[in-house]
Amino acid sequence: MTKTSTTNPRVLGAYEGFVKHLKNFLDEQQFNHEEYTNFVKWADRLGRSGEIPLFLDVFVETHVLESKYKDSPGTEPSLLGPYYEENSPVLEKSPFVMPQRDDEPGDKLVFTGNVSSTNGPLAHTKVEWWQDDADGLYSNYDSPAPDFNLRGQFVTDENGDFEVHSIVPIPYQIPTDGPTGEFTFAAGYHAYRPAHIHIKFEHEGHETLITQVFFEGDKWLETDVAGGVRESLLTKLEDKGDHKEASLNFVMRAE
Amino acid sequence: MTKTSTTNPRVLGAYEGFVKHLKNFLDEQQFNHEEYTNFVKWADRLGRSGEIPLFLDVFVETHVLESKYKDSPGTEPSLLGPYYEENSPVLEKSPFVMPQRDDEPGDKLVFTGNVSSTNGPLAHTKVEWWQDDADGLYSNYDSPAPDFNLRGQFVTDENGDFEVHSIVPIPYQIPTDGPTGEFTFAAGYHAYRPAHIHIKFEHEGHETLITQVFFEGDKWLETDVAGGVRESLLTKLEDKGDHKEASLNFVMRAE
Repeated sequence: MTKTSTTNPRVLGAYEGFVKHLKNFLDEQQFNHEEYTNFVKWADRLGRSGEIPLFLDVFVETHVLESKYKDSPGTEPSLLGPYYEENSPVLEKSPFVMPQRDDEPGDKLVFTGNVSSTNGPLAHTKVEWWQDDADGLYSNYDSPAPDFNLRGQFVTDENGDFEVHSIVPIPYQIPTDGPTGEFTFAAGYHAYRPAHIHIKFEHEGHETLITQVFFEGDKWLETDVAGGVRESLLTKLEDKGDHKEASLNFVMRAE
Repeated sequence: MTKTSTTNPRVLGAYEGFVKHLKNFLDEQQFNHEEYTNFVKWADRLGRSGEIPLFLDVFVETHVLESKYKDSPGTEPSLLGPYYEENSPVLEKSPFVMPQRDDEPGDKLVFTGNVSSTNGPLAHTKVEWWQDDADGLYSNYDSPAPDFNLRGQFVTDENGDFEVHSIVPIPYQIPTDGPTGEFTFAAGYHAYRPAHIHIKFEHEGHETLITQVFFEGDKWLETDVAGGVRESLLTKLEDKGDHKEASLNFVMRAE
């Protein structure tokens, strides 16, 4: 192919890289015509189903993040996942109670944490929190709950501390009835993710941190279909009778 | 990810290879979060538009074929493309007249050829032929012509010879209004393919040959957006007054 005009070199580099790696893939596989056709048909089903973001997040992004940040200071990122939703309710008053139904099922959770910087203490960090409900479903996506159920944003205090009241998330399966599930099972994987809380931190002068919190003892930690678990993202659920408690501290990377 | 069951190793290899090369791509690009999101959104638009087969055929398959067959004996394959349609009309009598409208626009074409084997002469090869019309459109896809217009299949004679009566195909642009066109222009390419005839050969004991025929002097030969042109696939259009003539011989690879 010959270039006939100039363009954004970063975009061009991305496009050319994408094509180059697809070629490497096909060169390596040495598909015969039937195998190539089957691959194209699967890729087309994946695309038409709208599962490309799910597929990329679950099978690709997490490993890229892991290799990029493994040896960096600060809290390790984990995948954003396909269930993030902008403009969640702003919670003004600590402890921050996640929006929930009157009869929200599940174990009550009190979660405390602190956000600091690789440079030291850090006040007033913006935090976004989203998680599944006790049926393993996400509001705004597959849950019958009202939009923004178990989603909220708030700001840490002058010491970087925060306290959230919510419910304990549960393990769930990624969608299994589409081409991503087809891939999952054909590759011999199960479709479960361990229970996790999604959490995103923003603070001026710092790299935005998107990560997840996991719980010790979860049966899917070792085999998370999305490979999102990191040692440093594990916390322990403590049983306090009428509720459970957990805590984790986070360190943002100064730019 | 941990394998929890066994599976077809060829399918598993293909899936794992696909993911591996996507990871290589993302590792190499070192996208920031916004760039990653933009890439995922573009890939999702590509998928939802149904253009994945087009994209793979045009930007990937042809280069894979070229590297695979460059140094092989026999006629070089070229891309199948997205416009192939099975079960085209069976033409019984030579010269084989491609199905066409009463007033089919375009220059009349008489095309003669011979199909042999890397082992020597070859009788009775099945040939499928498809091409665009004088508006650059394909029946069964974007042309208003009846289904299977300018599409047909036939069998070569005992010497491997055949003669087709059709019209001269013209250069056309691949679709430019979707994500593939977005890619094309962002990368600084034009969207034209030189005029070509698609042709597919099948014969027992031989590798199925899918290729294209191009015409000397076409202005897009050097910059074919799909990179499908090979020196050995070029023929010359000769002006015979009320029609044009062209000829090319093909050699299938014995298995």
